[in-house]
Amino acid sequence: MIDKKKFEEDIKKIRKTNPLIHNITNYVAMNFSANALLAFGASPIMAHSPMEMEEIVTLSSALVINIGTLDENWIKGMVIAAKTAHQNQKPWVIDPVGAGASTYRTQTALHLIQEYHPNVIRGNASEIMALTNNRVQSKGVDSSINVEKAQNAADWLAKEHHTTVVISGETDYITNGQQREFIQNGSPIMPKITAMGCTASSMVGTFLSINENSFMAAAHAMAIMGITGETTAEKYQSPGSFVPAFLDNLYQMTDTEYSNKLRQ
Amino acid sequence: MIDKKKFEEDIKKIRKTNPLIHNITNYVAMNFSANALLAFGASPIMAHSPMEMEEIVTLSSALVINIGTLDENWIKGMVIAAKTAHQNQKPWVIDPVGAGASTYRTQTALHLIQEYHPNVIRGNASEIMALTNNRVQSKGVDSSINVEKAQNAADWLAKEHHTTVVISGETDYITNGQQREFIQNGSPIMPKITAMGCTASSMVGTFLSINENSFMAAAHAMAIMGITGETTAEKYQSPGSFVPAFLDNLYQMTDTEYSNKLRQ
Amino acid sequence: MIDKKKFEEDIKKIRKTNPLIHNITNYVAMNFSANALLAFGASPIMAHSPMEMEEIVTLSSALVINIGTLDENWIKGMVIAAKTAHQNQKPWVIDPVGAGASTYRTQTALHLIQEYHPNVIRGNASEIMALTNNRVQSKGVDSSINVEKAQNAADWLAKEHHTTVVISGETDYITNGQQREFIQNGSPIMPKITAMGCTASSMVGTFLSINENSFMAAAHAMAIMGITGETTAEKYQSPGSFVPAFLDNLYQMTDTEYSNKLRQ
Repeated sequence: MIDKKKFEEDIKKIRKTNPLIHNITNYVAMNFSANALLAFGASPIMAHSPMEMEEIVTLSSALVINIGTLDENWIKGMVIAAKTAHQNQKPWVIDPVGAGASTYRTQTALHLIQEYHPNVIRGNASEIMALTNNRVQSKGVDSSINVEKAQNAADWLAKEHHTTVVISGETDYITNGQQREFIQNGSPIMPKITAMGCTASSMVGTFLSINENSFMAAAHAMAIMGITGETTAEKYQSPGSFVPAFLDNLYQMTDTEYSNKLRQ
Repeated sequence: MIDKKKFEEDIKKIRKTNPLIHNITNYVAMNFSANALLAFGASPIMAHSPMEMEEIVTLSSALVINIGTLDENWIKGMVIAAKTAHQNQKPWVIDPVGAGASTYRTQTALHLIQEYHPNVIRGNASEIMALTNNRVQSKGVDSSINVEKAQNAADWLAKEHHTTVVISGETDYITNGQQREFIQNGSPIMPKITAMGCTASSMVGTFLSINENSFMAAAHAMAIMGITGETTAEKYQSPGSFVPAFLDNLYQMTDTEYSNKLRQ
Repeated sequence: MIDKKKFEEDIKKIRKTNPLIHNITNYVAMNFSANALLAFGASPIMAHSPMEMEEIVTLSSALVINIGTLDENWIKGMVIAAKTAHQNQKPWVIDPVGAGASTYRTQTALHLIQEYHPNVIRGNASEIMALTNNRVQSKGVDSSINVEKAQNAADWLAKEHHTTVVISGETDYITNGQQREFIQNGSPIMPKITAMGCTASSMVGTFLSINENSFMAAAHAMAIMGITGETTAEKYQSPGSFVPAFLDNLYQMTDTEYSNKLRQ
C-alpha cells in the first residue's frame, strides 16, 4: 500500500526542487518524455555522447537508460553513464525496451544490469520475462502477455539482481523480491500511445532522484502515470487528444488530487 | 477504382491482427508515425542497428525504410534490413525523402531499390522524378511540382524496377506500370505538417503486411491517409490542432466510414 | 525598437518565398521545430550527414546548428555545414544548448563560433555566460539565472566574435555589441515546454534567410516567438494544450496582428 502522505511529500519535493534527470532514451520517446518531466516539475536533460557522460551524470540527480533505439555508438554512452551512476551512487533506472525481440537488446540490457546494478528495472511483461532467460518471443514493444504470468519472473529478477522490478500493464506490479505493490490506476488507451512506457521510466528516474527508497519511488512514479492516464481518459478517449491532455494533467494536478485518486 | 469491399476487409484485418511493422525512419517522423500506426491498429517497432536487423525484420510483417535523416551508420542497418526482407519475401516500402536534394540521398535510395527490390516506392513528385535521373532540383522535402508532370516518371520507374510507385500530392497517383489509381481525398493543410508523407509510407507498410497485392495495398494506404486528413480538415484547419485530431480519427473511424468517404 | 513596418515586411517575405532552412538540430526538438517553421511559412529540412552537408547547405537559404544532442558523428556534419555556410556567405545561427553543462558542449560551440563565425548565437543566460569562459555551472538546459546578469556577457561575446547574441528569457535580449533590443513579449509557460528555445533558434535562421541585417533578423524572430507564446497563453495555460495552439497561432496570425502585439 502506498502511504498517501509520503506520496504527497515526494510530489511536493519534485515540484519544489526541479531535479535534473538525465535521460539516454530512444528517438521516439524523447520529446514526449521531456515534456512530461517538465510538465510534472522535473528538469530533463537528454545527452548520449561518451565524451560528456561523466560530467552530465555527475551533474544530474538521477539517470534513465532506455534501449528503445539503441546502436553501438549509443551503447558506449550508456555504459559510461551507468558506470558513473553506479560509482557515484546516483540512482538509475533501466527500460529494456524490446528485450526478447532481439538478442542484441536482451544482452545489452542484461549487461548493463549485471555490471552496473540499476535501482529499478521497468518494462512490460514480455520484456521482464525475456531478462530471466525464460525466453518468450516478444511481439515488439507492446505485449499482450498477462501481467500476472510475469510476476514470478519479476520476483526472481528482483532477487537475482537486488533491485526493484516494475511490470507495466493493466495492473502495474512493483517488487523488490520481498515487498510487492499493485497499482490499479490507468486506462486502456495508454498502450495506444507510443512512449507512454518510456515516459513511465523517466518518471521513475524522477522519483528516484528525491526518494532513497527505490521500491517506494518506483511505486510513486507508476501511480503518477496511472492516475494521470486515468484522469485524462475520463475526458479524452482517443490517443491524439489524449497526449496534450495528459501533459496538462501532469502540470495541473496537485499532490492531494493525486493521493485522493490512488486505487490500490 | 478501389474496391470498397476489399478496402474494408484490409482495414478490418489490420485492426484484428495488429501487424508488427518495422520502421527505419527519420528522427522527425518517428513519434508521429508510431502514434499513427498505433492509433490505426498496427504495432510499430523502430530499430536501426545492424546488430539486430535480421532478427527484427524476421519478426516483423513488413518493413518501412525512410531516408529522411540518413547517415553512414544508418545505411548499414537499412541495407541489412532491405536484404533480409528481400530474401525472406517480407514486403517492404521505401520513402526516398529528399531524393534530388542531395546526390547522397538519390544514390542511397537507388541503391536500395536496385539491389533489394521494394514492393512500393512512395515519394512526392520531385523525389520520384529524381529517381529517374530526370534530375529536377528538389526544394527539400516538400515540392510544388505538379503531380501530373511526374506521372510519366512514376510509370517509367514502376516498369524499370517491377514495383509500385506512389506519388503523394493533391491527387495521389499509384502505378505499377500497368494499373493506375488516383486518390482524390486529402486536404491542403496536410503538407503544412511535417512527417505526413513519412507516415503515409509507414501506412503503406502496414497494408503491405496484410495484402499480397502491393498495388492495392499502396492504394488502400493512401486512401486512409487522404480520407483521414480530409475528415480532420472538416473541423481543424490549422496544423497544430490538426495533428491530434488526425490521430483521433485514425483511431475512431470505422472501415465503413472509410469506404463511404472514398473519392476516386 | 523594432520597426513595425520592417517586421511586417519580413513576415510577408517569409510567407511569400517559403525559404528552405537547413536544421542540424537535436532529436528532442526536430519534430516541433519542423512543424513550427512549416506553420509559420518556411520550408525546414533536417539533415546531418557529412556526405551531403555541402549540397544541402548550398541549396538552403540559411543554416541552424543546435548542439542539444551532439556526438562525434554529428559534429563532423556540423563542421562541414558551418564551413560551407561561412564560405558561401549563407547566414547561420548556433544554439549552444547545454553549454556549461559539459566541457564537450562548451568547446564544441566555441570551436564552431571561432572558426566559422555564425551570424547569431542564441541561448539562455547560463549558456551565453558559459561561452565567455565566465564559467557558471549550468543546470542543464533551463537556467534560472537572471537575464540581466548575463547581458554583459552577451555584449562581450558579440564584440569578441563580431556577431549578434540573443539571450532568451522573461525579457529577450538581443545585442550586436553596439545596438541592443529588448523583447517583452512571452509567457511563463514557455520554459515548461521542451524545444521552445531550439525552435526560437530555427526561427532566427528563418529570418536570417530573408533579412541581411542579422541583428534585426534575430530581434524579429524572437518577437515572433514571444508574441505567439503570449497570444497562445491567453487561452492555454497548460503545456500540453499549449503546443498545438502555439502552432495554430504561428499559422494563423497575420503580419499586422504580430506587429500590433509587439511590446518593447
